Amino acid sequence: MATTNQDFANSVQVLAFDVFGTVVDWHGSITREMQELAPQVDGSAFALAWRAGYRPAMARVMSGELGWTRIDDLHRIILDGLLARFGLDHLDEAQRQSLNRAWHRLDPWPDAVPALTRLRRHYTLCTLSNGNIGLLTNMAKRAGLPWDCILSAEVFHAYKPDPATYLGVARVFDLAPAQVMLVAAHHDDLAGARACGLRTAYIERREEFGSAHRKDVAPQPGNDLHCRSLLDLADQLGAA
Amino acid sequence: MATTNQDFANSVQVLAFDVFGTVVDWHGSITREMQELAPQVDGSAFALAWRAGYRPAMARVMSGELGWTRIDDLHRIILDGLLARFGLDHLDEAQRQSLNRAWHRLDPWPDAVPALTRLRRHYTLCTLSNGNIGLLTNMAKRAGLPWDCILSAEVFHAYKPDPATYLGVARVFDLAPAQVMLVAAHHDDLAGARACGLRTAYIERREEFGSAHRKDVAPQPGNDLHCRSLLDLADQLGAA
Repeated sequence: MATTNQDFANSVQVLAFDVFGTVVDWHGSITREMQELAPQVDGSAFALAWRAGYRPAMARVMSGELGWTRIDDLHRIILDGLLARFGLDHLDEAQRQSLNRAWHRLDPWPDAVPALTRLRRHYTLCTLSNGNIGLLTNMAKRAGLPWDCILSAEVFHAYKPDPATYLGVARVFDLAPAQVMLVAAHHDDLAGARACGLRTAYIERREEFGSAHRKDVAPQPGNDLHCRSLLDLADQLGAA
Repeated sequence: MATTNQDFANSVQVLAFDVFGTVVDWHGSITREMQELAPQVDGSAFALAWRAGYRPAMARVMSGELGWTRIDDLHRIILDGLLARFGLDHLDEAQRQSLNRAWHRLDPWPDAVPALTRLRRHYTLCTLSNGNIGLLTNMAKRAGLPWDCILSAEVFHAYKPDPATYLGVARVFDLAPAQVMLVAAHHDDLAGARACGLRTAYIERREEFGSAHRKDVAPQPGNDLHCRSLLDLADQLGAA
């Protein structure tokens, strides 16, 4: 590509962030919650199983089999289907509700707050997550994530990678798609954004699925930026 | 009422703020912008005329005469209808676009940032404005308004005082309506929220329409709190 990082830095006005896995460590956080609740359970296996139900659940919504459903409710459907397998079907309703809110209490990766703080001086920062607005707001307040705006599948009534989500961000800010950059640790998400004309930055999160399940984070063609971390993104965009 | 302020402080979790007039000074800010653009124009009269078109324009949307339209676009329709009357029909397209964005550059009332900063330590703070998401985000970034979340008519596809907006806030945060308090300088907005079961706090903004058009800010029955300012609200809620 003929463009340089300085070209992005000048033309991009909004950075839209995937959240689960990119900004916060869902695997480590759910594992931690389960270790506190039920030390006898394999917390990592539980976290992986819960997350594995996520895409199929969203697919049921996007196919029309389920009406519009927020992630909080999808998480709960998946959770109820998992408890027996992990010997947790004795949990009462209040305990299940509390456990389901673990997704509101995900910890940020250590680079997230300092990097977002730098980037926010130069760009408008928003979430673009399949998580619902309340979940993302509670998470940001707890973790100190300095978003300018919480955008969510809930605003667009469509889940990523539906084009309505990526184009929705550009439309909310009255920008051309190329003035918005999606930041994500997932190539399929970035491919969806790219197809809509957004800029894209890949973030390496080798341990998204835990240290026992390291992810291939080799660069793939097509992304405008490949970053080792969110701090590396701030460096590459010249955001001091 | 039998409840005390301490009861509110304990049960309310989210404060939802009206923005135009309550948090920011639209009259003073639009007057200032017009003084810079065209000193010969009566900036206050221009600001009042522009704002006077606001309710009729929203009524056209809510009646179905216009499809869903964002406030940025309603502001532009009203502006185009006003320019000749104020001798401004020579403004070109770029100048009209820039002037229309004056609503993104409204200044906060002097108490807003310090009061919101105090309240945010104790509550989740969101906007509940008929302004669109991009407008509210740009305004917050420029003015330093520390929202946890930007909620807008644009999220609910309904303008206040439609119940979908007030109940929408409670639903976003999975709360009962009485756990949400609407903060506004307008009795009709507060009445709409109250009818949906929200708590309400009235804020005196005697000079919302300028010092030449002082507003009656006498207490009216029905609101949970009557506050001289947003700092007074923070005091009454015990938010240090």
